[in-house]
Amino acid sequence: MLKPYLFFTLLKIAEALIDLNKQEVSASFLIKKFNIPQQTLSRHLKELKKLGLVETVKISKGETVKVTVKGYKELALIQALLEKTLKVQPNEIKLEGKVFSGLGEGSYYISQPGYKKQFIEKLGFNPYPGTLNVKIEECYLRRVSLLKCYPSIVIEGFSNGKRSFGSVNCYKALLEDKIEGAVISALRSHYGEDVLEIIAPVNLRETLKLKDGDKISFIVFPTR
Amino acid sequence: MLKPYLFFTLLKIAEALIDLNKQEVSASFLIKKFNIPQQTLSRHLKELKKLGLVETVKISKGETVKVTVKGYKELALIQALLEKTLKVQPNEIKLEGKVFSGLGEGSYYISQPGYKKQFIEKLGFNPYPGTLNVKIEECYLRRVSLLKCYPSIVIEGFSNGKRSFGSVNCYKALLEDKIEGAVISALRSHYGEDVLEIIAPVNLRETLKLKDGDKISFIVFPTR
Repeated sequence: MLKPYLFFTLLKIAEALIDLNKQEVSASFLIKKFNIPQQTLSRHLKELKKLGLVETVKISKGETVKVTVKGYKELALIQALLEKTLKVQPNEIKLEGKVFSGLGEGSYYISQPGYKKQFIEKLGFNPYPGTLNVKIEECYLRRVSLLKCYPSIVIEGFSNGKRSFGSVNCYKALLEDKIEGAVISALRSHYGEDVLEIIAPVNLRETLKLKDGDKISFIVFPTR
Repeated sequence: MLKPYLFFTLLKIAEALIDLNKQEVSASFLIKKFNIPQQTLSRHLKELKKLGLVETVKISKGETVKVTVKGYKELALIQALLEKTLKVQPNEIKLEGKVFSGLGEGSYYISQPGYKKQFIEKLGFNPYPGTLNVKIEECYLRRVSLLKCYPSIVIEGFSNGKRSFGSVNCYKALLEDKIEGAVISALRSHYGEDVLEIIAPVNLRETLKLKDGDKISFIVFPTR
């Protein structure tokens, strides 16, 4: 886990960005606003940069700082821990994204009997052979980081004799307020952090009349 | 704000309590589980005790530690800050409690024109002259601490020439899934942290057929 003083400095930078509604903040602003000695801030920034949690850019008078995706993930980890200890983990997380076409291998994976049996047993439905790829909207991305800190329903990996299949993390979900399905992650790793795949007992593109670029909104239920 | 290392020790203690599902944990367990040197833990516990964030009890072999209400409030403060920076502040917080009778001064306060005008303007309804006192269930108490960290709708204090009235913090609420009202706090300070007062455009005891000891569940909407 992150060193305590680095966590607080990271949190302060993130707070300043929210208050300013900006993507980056000048070091001099941080020094003034949080009353941190310049040397302390410089030392912390150096360590945070080494860990890949912030990025800095030199400007004419000093430098500006931004929090990286990895930095926000560190904050989300602590957040999830606090939610656990305060027993306030949300019952549901609302997400939105845009549908896009994958390479079609979703159906290959979903149809594997080794997965299918577990989907039925652990999710309570027999999934339509195919996944709906959703690119999550920018403003919901931090919720995805947080979601991934919550315990998931784990579909165990297996081998079918020819090759091995990795484990899959699922969260139950309600799609467009009407279809019960699940969000799965880590089926294939070539998508970025901003992509979630959705499965359901029905063909979602047909049932929800979705084409590429259409918006889909859904609610994810973290496991307790 | 709490010193960074104390925050992390406090968080670890709270985490251990959740994992063990207990009210207190032995210092020796913390030392083993979190791999903290005994001296470090002793020093941190001493500081945390001084701040009233934990309590310790001597036992035959060492001591046990519990987190105080004040300790959980400190954690809730950081939690709220993280929610803000991660933009994941919940849209709604579900609470439950039991109705009890107060001394009847609620109606006196609510009827003050200085308050009433602002209730109508800021909450959008003319409140029934009276408050419903609700003692929040134990398991929801930490959500109340967290709720109080979110920005509220502030009803300003005023003077009516004879005496002065303090400011009141409100959050909009939906009562029993059907009546729009508001949760107010700090109207009078003689109730404990576990009591919230609810106002609505109607007489809640009559409309929801509530008597002392009855359960009421409601959703509170934090301000953004």
